[in-house]
Amino acid sequence: MSTYQAPLADMRFALFDVLGAESVFQRLGYAEATRDVLDAVLDEAARFTGTVLAPLNAVGDREGCKLDRDTGAVTTPAGFKQAYAQYVDGGWAGLTSPVEFGGQGMPHAAGVPLKEMIDAANLSWGNFPLLSHGATEALLHYGEAWQQEAFLKPLIEGRWTGTMCLTEPHCGTDLGLLKTRAEPQADGSYAIAGTKIFITAGEHDFTDNIVHLVLARLPDAPAGSKGISLFVVPKRRVDREGNMGEANAVRCGSLEHKMGIHGSATCVMNFDGAQGYLVGQPNKGLMAMFVMMNTARLAVGLQGLGVSDRALQNALRYSRERLQMRALSGPKFPDKPADPIIVHPDVRRMLLTCKALVEGGRLMGYDAALQVDIATHGADTAEREQADALLGFLTPIVKACLTEWGVECTYNALQCFGGHGYIAEHGMEQLARDARITTLYEGTTGIQALDLLGRKVLQMQGAGLKVFLAQVEKFCEEQAGNAAVAEFIGPLREKAAQWQQMTVQVGKRAAANPDEIGAASYDYLMYSGYVVLAYWWARSVAASEASSQPADFKAGKRETARFYYGRILPRTLAHAAAVASGADTLTTLEADAF
Amino acid sequence: MSTYQAPLADMRFALFDVLGAESVFQRLGYAEATRDVLDAVLDEAARFTGTVLAPLNAVGDREGCKLDRDTGAVTTPAGFKQAYAQYVDGGWAGLTSPVEFGGQGMPHAAGVPLKEMIDAANLSWGNFPLLSHGATEALLHYGEAWQQEAFLKPLIEGRWTGTMCLTEPHCGTDLGLLKTRAEPQADGSYAIAGTKIFITAGEHDFTDNIVHLVLARLPDAPAGSKGISLFVVPKRRVDREGNMGEANAVRCGSLEHKMGIHGSATCVMNFDGAQGYLVGQPNKGLMAMFVMMNTARLAVGLQGLGVSDRALQNALRYSRERLQMRALSGPKFPDKPADPIIVHPDVRRMLLTCKALVEGGRLMGYDAALQVDIATHGADTAEREQADALLGFLTPIVKACLTEWGVECTYNALQCFGGHGYIAEHGMEQLARDARITTLYEGTTGIQALDLLGRKVLQMQGAGLKVFLAQVEKFCEEQAGNAAVAEFIGPLREKAAQWQQMTVQVGKRAAANPDEIGAASYDYLMYSGYVVLAYWWARSVAASEASSQPADFKAGKRETARFYYGRILPRTLAHAAAVASGADTLTTLEADAF
Repeated sequence: MSTYQAPLADMRFALFDVLGAESVFQRLGYAEATRDVLDAVLDEAARFTGTVLAPLNAVGDREGCKLDRDTGAVTTPAGFKQAYAQYVDGGWAGLTSPVEFGGQGMPHAAGVPLKEMIDAANLSWGNFPLLSHGATEALLHYGEAWQQEAFLKPLIEGRWTGTMCLTEPHCGTDLGLLKTRAEPQADGSYAIAGTKIFITAGEHDFTDNIVHLVLARLPDAPAGSKGISLFVVPKRRVDREGNMGEANAVRCGSLEHKMGIHGSATCVMNFDGAQGYLVGQPNKGLMAMFVMMNTARLAVGLQGLGVSDRALQNALRYSRERLQMRALSGPKFPDKPADPIIVHPDVRRMLLTCKALVEGGRLMGYDAALQVDIATHGADTAEREQADALLGFLTPIVKACLTEWGVECTYNALQCFGGHGYIAEHGMEQLARDARITTLYEGTTGIQALDLLGRKVLQMQGAGLKVFLAQVEKFCEEQAGNAAVAEFIGPLREKAAQWQQMTVQVGKRAAANPDEIGAASYDYLMYSGYVVLAYWWARSVAASEASSQPADFKAGKRETARFYYGRILPRTLAHAAAVASGADTLTTLEADAF
Repeated sequence: MSTYQAPLADMRFALFDVLGAESVFQRLGYAEATRDVLDAVLDEAARFTGTVLAPLNAVGDREGCKLDRDTGAVTTPAGFKQAYAQYVDGGWAGLTSPVEFGGQGMPHAAGVPLKEMIDAANLSWGNFPLLSHGATEALLHYGEAWQQEAFLKPLIEGRWTGTMCLTEPHCGTDLGLLKTRAEPQADGSYAIAGTKIFITAGEHDFTDNIVHLVLARLPDAPAGSKGISLFVVPKRRVDREGNMGEANAVRCGSLEHKMGIHGSATCVMNFDGAQGYLVGQPNKGLMAMFVMMNTARLAVGLQGLGVSDRALQNALRYSRERLQMRALSGPKFPDKPADPIIVHPDVRRMLLTCKALVEGGRLMGYDAALQVDIATHGADTAEREQADALLGFLTPIVKACLTEWGVECTYNALQCFGGHGYIAEHGMEQLARDARITTLYEGTTGIQALDLLGRKVLQMQGAGLKVFLAQVEKFCEEQAGNAAVAEFIGPLREKAAQWQQMTVQVGKRAAANPDEIGAASYDYLMYSGYVVLAYWWARSVAASEASSQPADFKAGKRETARFYYGRILPRTLAHAAAVASGADTLTTLEADAF
């Protein structure tokens, strides 16, 4: 079975040594988010996730969720419900939510290590509270006062959970096609009718009520995505005074049988004239959806990161224990029947790939979370707008890269186990199956790539990219005299410059042929991710050398950065060449001739 | 559910138009292997695999194999046993085995499309007859006359199946550590005692008997891999006259729970003083094992290919049907509510990646199989030795690249389905889980990489590489005036030249530090695979343009080659940079500091 212990040392290094999170939080007015408090939160989160959630990971995979077709009730795997009660009792549900609605008012970025730990400990379980966050965001931004009283408070306290009901059988990415209807009722509510699929945590046994946020069409709505509205539809009816009443006309019709995340309930939800309330303006549902979606995308990125870290931890343990063959350069442990496989360079290649992607990825994920806080609480409009542009730019990169790397890390970690990795009892194959969902839901990698290149870079004239490149240049200038990072500065600057040129070239080509955007998008995205990671690895070395971290820790950062620059960053060469090859290599062939 | 129909047109193109297999077969003395006969074999194999095996693929995944712990008997999924009876009745078991032992005497390469079809149709089922081939090879090469009578004939007829019992709990790659013992008995047989794991088809209900080929140590054997001998150990005892007697002391102790290939019985086999006979010389078992292993490695490469093709076929179908979003360059099907997703360049990128790797990979796999025939039946020693060197060189490339690409193709094909790909009913996630075993068994990718660079290239002074590079150069010269392939010749020559230089450089570094071999091996292997594929794509275009194939087919080859050269071949840049970065980026960090 795979195990998990939160990597507290590296999490603290990322938050405090590299990102200087404590001073950022203080500057943004989070007086209580001191290092002491944050350290205590991290310790306690590590204990909860390591002792309560992690041991339930294999149970969830084995048992899955069960639907009672007669009642529509869903039973979660043994221990899941009790773990959720502990989560709520521990005050974790509202850690980063506003105090006025019952939250603890910590900064968003302070909740991110907890999120990573939950995902690493038990991705399936983590999906139940996860979806509450999207619902919370939507109601915070667009909910009427009574809706916030009635729905938001129980969500933040964790007494209820939330969902995002977007997808329908014939539409996922293309929400303009959706058919679910909302009929206005005499009392000002709406009757919601339609079928939603892939609804994570759509039904379960954790809480008395579930708050569905549902996209649907009003009777007179324009066609396409401009005719979509958002509704709040509870599992049990709730009146405007917040009183919970009878069961609403919404029911789980079936559970999907999936490759992984078996412990997570993926529901078909049938709305049969269910009572709901409009959230925000009519026909403006898509905007509200993006509020939910952006939160969810960063969160899914963290899922990729968390699972990768768990995979790495277990591969590292196995590679130190498993004895097989001698090092080619001569026996390293002559007293043992063979050397541990960690002596073999190719095993190290796989482990270092994981380490480079996990520890660098952690900074990508945490930094994006910090931008959320700065975009909301920054000192002035300029700072907030800049953070918002950066955040919008980083979100598809974080989502797509951390999840693609999640697939890669779970692949490599499993590979370290040889044939044993394929056997369920080691737990590595579950991690690979679980990680596989993350490049699909909340927008596939292809969709993130279009969002990055089409919207965030080209439509917005590179606003976020410029902010990021200015950060890179500022760092390079600051480090001009620092011998510890000198070897990284040249390549980093070179990649950054090439990134700018590539952007200009793609922009020109796209002006002549919009298919150039879709043709370049994936490779542009991955190129971007590797340059962002190169920046974080250079910063990691600079921060580690300047810190009081132990010598082993510093060596780990330095050598992993060298590995990254020598063996991973060159992938940008392949991605740049693919971008340069243009749309013709993709679009010329007739669909019938494939 | 996923479906499968053998891609007969492309298989014929590969065999006949590109490889000229018919004339090779005739030259090698396979008088009966005419185009007419081969075409009939292909048609019939397509029918059998498409109608009998393919529909059982999902059944096998769902039901798995079941062990009766009281009797040690294993029940295979519903329909598997009946399909095997049809396979034997159809004469498929001995298609490429010698006529003198009951086979049909067709060339090895003529059996390879059948093998690909079986793997694509039902990888799990295919593992039962597959292992017979390794056992057949070992007995053909090293078996005594009576052993060939008693064991080989029933194997070739398919009345019995075979296994390869190598791995033990503490040793997989490092067989020198194995502990299973063989005690000589008064009657000249041996009593075999020990535990073997990961034994594919170790127990099942297809046949009356199972022929285990078991590696074990004689009492006085030297330590390590020089003290390993090979034994034939039947499930039911067989005397020297070939009479089947009572049950032997060998039993399936348990079945592994695996990520995929659920329909394949992966057994723990307990030998408790089982009667066995020595095959070949004492303490020379490892050599015999390599005979089995090389056959198995090429076969596993074909598994990667087969599953990839099935994944591509289904992704293609779905991408033509699924309507979602409009093309960025304007609606392509304005009468439909949205365009089929195959209009989107990024979906095409995923499909073309699969197509390039599958169709190019088919040529890699088939060509290696042709080398098996030439190495055995070539006109003179020089031709046979050259083919043997080439085969030894290509085997790790075929095994590792076709399986790594199998993981990549099943990834991409699943990704085309979006979230639906993660749901079991579409069958795509089964393909991804099934494909995952292929980079692990019969030597992981890392082991193939060491075999390629350490043994086949450096130890053997690049004998096989030279043969291959000479082929490439010969092709480039022949095509000098051919405008249809002109765009590919330059890049192909450039990559081939760089390959040579890289080999020389790695060789120099390895002479100073053997860890350089392990450090370069994986990236050297993948680099090699992409150049080999570039050669086959250029040859495919040349052969297709020179053929009477339909215009659509020619366009498919030409555009896929352009895609490959523009968007996949540049991966060599990243692999070359990784090779150039040397061992230091991998070996410096202390194992404790990871």
